[in-house]
Amino acid sequence: MILSRRLRASPYEARVIEQGVKAFSLYNKMTLPLVFNDSASDYEHLCNHVQIWDVACERQVEVSGPDALRLVELITPRDISSCEIGQCMYAPLCDEHGGIINDPVILRLADDRFWLSIADSDVLLWVKGIVYGRGFNVRVFEPDVSPLAIQGPKADDLMSDVIGERARDIRFFRFINVEIAGTDVVLARSGWSGQGGFEVYLQDHRKGLDLWDTFWSAGQKYNVRSGGPNVIDRLEKGLKSYGSDMTIDSNPFESGLESFISLNKEAECMSIEALKKVEKSGPEKRLVNLVVDGAALNSPRSEWRVQDANGQVTGIVTSLAWSPSMNANLAFAIINSASADRGTVLSVDTDNDVRKAVVHDSDWKLY
Amino acid sequence: MILSRRLRASPYEARVIEQGVKAFSLYNKMTLPLVFNDSASDYEHLCNHVQIWDVACERQVEVSGPDALRLVELITPRDISSCEIGQCMYAPLCDEHGGIINDPVILRLADDRFWLSIADSDVLLWVKGIVYGRGFNVRVFEPDVSPLAIQGPKADDLMSDVIGERARDIRFFRFINVEIAGTDVVLARSGWSGQGGFEVYLQDHRKGLDLWDTFWSAGQKYNVRSGGPNVIDRLEKGLKSYGSDMTIDSNPFESGLESFISLNKEAECMSIEALKKVEKSGPEKRLVNLVVDGAALNSPRSEWRVQDANGQVTGIVTSLAWSPSMNANLAFAIINSASADRGTVLSVDTDNDVRKAVVHDSDWKLY
Repeated sequence: MILSRRLRASPYEARVIEQGVKAFSLYNKMTLPLVFNDSASDYEHLCNHVQIWDVACERQVEVSGPDALRLVELITPRDISSCEIGQCMYAPLCDEHGGIINDPVILRLADDRFWLSIADSDVLLWVKGIVYGRGFNVRVFEPDVSPLAIQGPKADDLMSDVIGERARDIRFFRFINVEIAGTDVVLARSGWSGQGGFEVYLQDHRKGLDLWDTFWSAGQKYNVRSGGPNVIDRLEKGLKSYGSDMTIDSNPFESGLESFISLNKEAECMSIEALKKVEKSGPEKRLVNLVVDGAALNSPRSEWRVQDANGQVTGIVTSLAWSPSMNANLAFAIINSASADRGTVLSVDTDNDVRKAVVHDSDWKLY
Repeated sequence: MILSRRLRASPYEARVIEQGVKAFSLYNKMTLPLVFNDSASDYEHLCNHVQIWDVACERQVEVSGPDALRLVELITPRDISSCEIGQCMYAPLCDEHGGIINDPVILRLADDRFWLSIADSDVLLWVKGIVYGRGFNVRVFEPDVSPLAIQGPKADDLMSDVIGERARDIRFFRFINVEIAGTDVVLARSGWSGQGGFEVYLQDHRKGLDLWDTFWSAGQKYNVRSGGPNVIDRLEKGLKSYGSDMTIDSNPFESGLESFISLNKEAECMSIEALKKVEKSGPEKRLVNLVVDGAALNSPRSEWRVQDANGQVTGIVTSLAWSPSMNANLAFAIINSASADRGTVLSVDTDNDVRKAVVHDSDWKLY
């Protein structure tokens, strides 16, 4: 892997390399550290202690100005009007066909100022195009913001040591403004793991190493380690990844995001008409949880086909991990709605063999 | 590097791995094979023989429908009205502030049908936003197209063996429709090297290995090898890379692309007003060629600052390679216009030392 300047450096990169990162992914044209020992032992540590994650690749798209709320309402079918200053909302962004462009967490910084904390697609360009085409009075840009995540059951203890007991009072998906390591940050109770914790939105990339070192030093008594989004954790907890589990060809009904949209919201929204049609007819495909029989599999690089009982191709596997605690291959798959009921017995072609697979509930229970 | 399904596979990936690729980059969320032996020996081979490059990451944005030409004219300051069917045009895409969004090669497939063969930024989303906002009657999508490049001085011989002597008649930046390996391809005389050759636009990813194997077999008598865009070649020949040498913060005047824009073009164009202002005032910065003194340097990952004779920071190095044939470090740098005249003596801080650097002409001559 050659890291040219085109693939932008994270302000935490030097520390991540010092910590011996074993595997990166690339995300929004930046490195995303994923593995430090191996996925299983990284995960066990995450479930028991606290980790620092370089998630600077979660870029922010800042929307500010008189038409900011109007623009945000236009691009997401979620009702944002009730979002308070200091609140985060998970919100799929959808185009005029109902296709998912991204699934950011939206932070409301002021009445007329939002950050879209994005997954891996260039929301900035899409929004710029809409703003130009509609002539909205709003500024859209990527600010100098680089999130650092503090995740795991000891995250509250660590954060309290750094900023005081008020850390414990931050509610889920709420944020405060605070100074850490001599620099102003936005501190939210959020993060892309099932183990709880915080995301720290650094607003000056030159302070990245100071911020990392502050948490690293304070974390020594909590057995802190470097970590990253963990594939076992995300499969067990049902965290979907944009680009793998949903794409521009998916819609919120197919992807199980019905509870995050409001088709009757008052504000103008570009995807509502298309989504009402999907609601009426029902989605053709659905993103489901599959347990795949047999020995541990690696996450697929190619398209592993899913077949129904008649041997007809009904979909593809989108993500997979072996869960040591559940002793099973957990997968997400996009399949035809006719094959998507829980308990349906299917098969998966892994390129090496064909295995039985059963549709499970989103919490991995059958019933 | 973990290659999940989010980072899409090229249809040529299996062959590239068999050929022992040593280094990839990531480009438009796909792998881009860069190095097979080392940059210097790959380059020497490229200059003397013929290479097959997996450039499937050059994604196409297809624009088709009644408003196709109107849309393409809107997003580029180049005059596209004269572009013939079967012709390619290099055209910077610019936003309403004159900032460069991408610098694709545009292929005109029909009166009302274009491909934008893009560099590394998500043009599809930007164009989708504009089309929605303006209500244009046009379809914009990413077709199943995966370019394969045949580059080097023996490319004509190889292509003639595959499709006959008509290969030699294809003019520079022109294309024909032809069947190779049992599948319809678009065949253009183009490619991202200074050594000449072709780009083969595969239109069915399932035929990727057949296409590769056809050229591989026919190329044996020409000492064919796998290759990729070569950093020495591109520095020597002045090929700029979007994302490194120009960004959304650059404009065509700063980036030396004046000859590819027409501020008096007749069609509506979103960047013309902003670019007329830049033309009038002159660009504040300029992308220049720098020769950096001393022993061979690697391409920078961090921001290497360029200073003027007074020790003031005047810009940054954007790309660099050691040229064995010229026995010099060749660099591109974006610097203040006041320091950009040829012959200006500057210095570069490489993180390890400070070196003398001199501004050269775009062909690396001083005068």
